[in-house]
Amino acid sequence: MSDTRHDVAEFTSSLNDLVHQRTRLGILTIVQEGGKVDFGYLQDALGLTGGNLSQHLTVLQAAGLVHIDKGYEGKRARTWVSKTKAGSRALRDEVSALKALVAHIEGIGS
Amino acid sequence: MSDTRHDVAEFTSSLNDLVHQRTRLGILTIVQEGGKVDFGYLQDALGLTGGNLSQHLTVLQAAGLVHIDKGYEGKRARTWVSKTKAGSRALRDEVSALKALVAHIEGIGS
Repeated sequence: MSDTRHDVAEFTSSLNDLVHQRTRLGILTIVQEGGKVDFGYLQDALGLTGGNLSQHLTVLQAAGLVHIDKGYEGKRARTWVSKTKAGSRALRDEVSALKALVAHIEGIGS
Repeated sequence: MSDTRHDVAEFTSSLNDLVHQRTRLGILTIVQEGGKVDFGYLQDALGLTGGNLSQHLTVLQAAGLVHIDKGYEGKRARTWVSKTKAGSRALRDEVSALKALVAHIEGIGS
């Protein structure tokens, strides 16, 4: 059982809360796919209030995982969110960690 | 892109914060594997303070996802944590949701 214990500690410590948190994982996934994504689009997609989405974007931006551009489309103020290299890498690392954890859990049987 | 959006919303909303949170995912995995697990064992395994582990266990217990038994081994007070059916089911659901999300992210390419 001590092998298991080391494995699980390794898996869970390689999950990065910055990226693992459910909403931020959703944001990074959509941005990875969509290139440059409108704030309102993200909000609808994830069913979030504007304030909640802003908070998560601030966390991701501070960590360098997304770019945020503010500008105008005609007279309308717009905010666009796009991926960074670090964001793509962080999402890739999260996926690797999740796959290892899932493989481990599936190996347990129940 | 609207298909993507619906997919991602579906994946992230099927992740349950109760179980998805990194430390609780680790606890449930170890308990799933270990049957009845000592508090100190979990604490070492996950590198947590006793207070932090207690907080997460309280959340999991309140949701019916783990059983907590207090007793004595000789003169020493012990706390054991074990899985419940609901806990096993919740972990299985989390694994399904993670697999769907991982498959989706890997389908994006980068």
